[in-house]
Amino acid sequence: MINLRGAKSLAMDLSRESGLILIDNLRRVKVTKIKDKLDFCTNIDIKVERFIIRGIHRAYPDHNILSEEAGDMKKESDYLWVIDPIDGTKHFMKNIPLFTVSIALQYKKEIVMGVIFNPSTHHMYHAYKGGGAYLNNRRIEVSKNNRIDHAFVALDISRLHHLPEIEMRNSLQRINRMLTETYRVRALGVSTLELCYLAQGAYDVYFDLTGSAKYVDVAAGLCIVKEAGGHVCDLEGKKVNRHTKHFLATNSRINKKIKDLLRI
Amino acid sequence: MINLRGAKSLAMDLSRESGLILIDNLRRVKVTKIKDKLDFCTNIDIKVERFIIRGIHRAYPDHNILSEEAGDMKKESDYLWVIDPIDGTKHFMKNIPLFTVSIALQYKKEIVMGVIFNPSTHHMYHAYKGGGAYLNNRRIEVSKNNRIDHAFVALDISRLHHLPEIEMRNSLQRINRMLTETYRVRALGVSTLELCYLAQGAYDVYFDLTGSAKYVDVAAGLCIVKEAGGHVCDLEGKKVNRHTKHFLATNSRINKKIKDLLRI
Repeated sequence: MINLRGAKSLAMDLSRESGLILIDNLRRVKVTKIKDKLDFCTNIDIKVERFIIRGIHRAYPDHNILSEEAGDMKKESDYLWVIDPIDGTKHFMKNIPLFTVSIALQYKKEIVMGVIFNPSTHHMYHAYKGGGAYLNNRRIEVSKNNRIDHAFVALDISRLHHLPEIEMRNSLQRINRMLTETYRVRALGVSTLELCYLAQGAYDVYFDLTGSAKYVDVAAGLCIVKEAGGHVCDLEGKKVNRHTKHFLATNSRINKKIKDLLRI
Repeated sequence: MINLRGAKSLAMDLSRESGLILIDNLRRVKVTKIKDKLDFCTNIDIKVERFIIRGIHRAYPDHNILSEEAGDMKKESDYLWVIDPIDGTKHFMKNIPLFTVSIALQYKKEIVMGVIFNPSTHHMYHAYKGGGAYLNNRRIEVSKNNRIDHAFVALDISRLHHLPEIEMRNSLQRINRMLTETYRVRALGVSTLELCYLAQGAYDVYFDLTGSAKYVDVAAGLCIVKEAGGHVCDLEGKKVNRHTKHFLATNSRINKKIKDLLRI
């Protein structure tokens, strides 16, 4: 196994540098690709992605890379770097300071390192397996709340209107339950940050309601949540992987109650 | 009429200073009052509120003040300053960088000046009647989108579970329509920022779904939205005032379509 602390330092350096590039280019952003109905990729996504991939390949030339825009770069390695150069591209384009750079490392089937940087607030979240989770230099931990009616819930509610009818009905039923049974529901539209806020004990639950969150969006956050004492699974309580839909992350204590609430 | 530009400068100074107090006290925050089930006031809300009230009274000793925690201070003036020392207190307490200082000025029945400062990102939004709306030194304008299926919508969905049953049913019906008919729905839980993002053309709509947004939360933002070219009304299309429920703010062009979508 490679030194995870070293891998984490590299990811922190690359994401911090990438964040500076983002802030410098806030007024120079151009849409270069329309991925589907109103899903964009910009010139800056590409620029930052290239910068990160180059940095990883220089240090670990044999590792695989999975990235939001460039896709899969396979090299027969047990290591897979999972990159989202900008989570929250739509916010970035519109100058809403809710976007991040996210870098994770998977070894065999497990995410063993995660880094998320918010360049608008200089919040750097980082964790590696067994090393605990941190916001800048402070250790962070999930909340201790186990009451549904006190629960602060973050939902990913994107792309509901793209769902087949039965899935849409299930999603609406679930969001209605969340809205009526929990304390507060938030939908920031940036799952990386929502997972960080869960890890630091601010939210109690993150749930991908519509099943449209991508692995590159959540991989780093899931590692940070786990290292902060949280629990990560899918809707059935199973371990997550690249193909999981409906990621569910909680503070651990409220896990069972939330799974019950989400059952259709 | 007093010089609005001068009043705006004062509000900008006071909110910037207040923001520094907030950032300095992020780790020293204590709950001092539980207002209702899980609604808090902290020692820092009180500290900042006193600072702002003192600053306004020094410059305008005869003016009325309405403030989130201190309530109504009436002096028989046509001027009313409307203050929210921290919008997003729960975020502030949990170190989520989504909180603001908000100061508005009402003359007779009209909001004529609004300032919102986000101390985590140093974004200062400001406007006075007839002077246009600004983010830091740049003029901002609402979006030009008039399509529901392209609409970026911010919803205030707090306190749904406190509503009487029929209002809850209406709210759920409305949120379900928004989720299925519009492009994206966000719920940041900070109406000041959501109104600013509408004013800068990032969102197309802000709607208080449950009718629980308070005038102190939205007064400054409504002025900024209007000066950026937006439209502000209640659910029936009427002018807003201190007692309005269900504030609706849009980019103007999409106003009628959104009102139709919200009709029960």
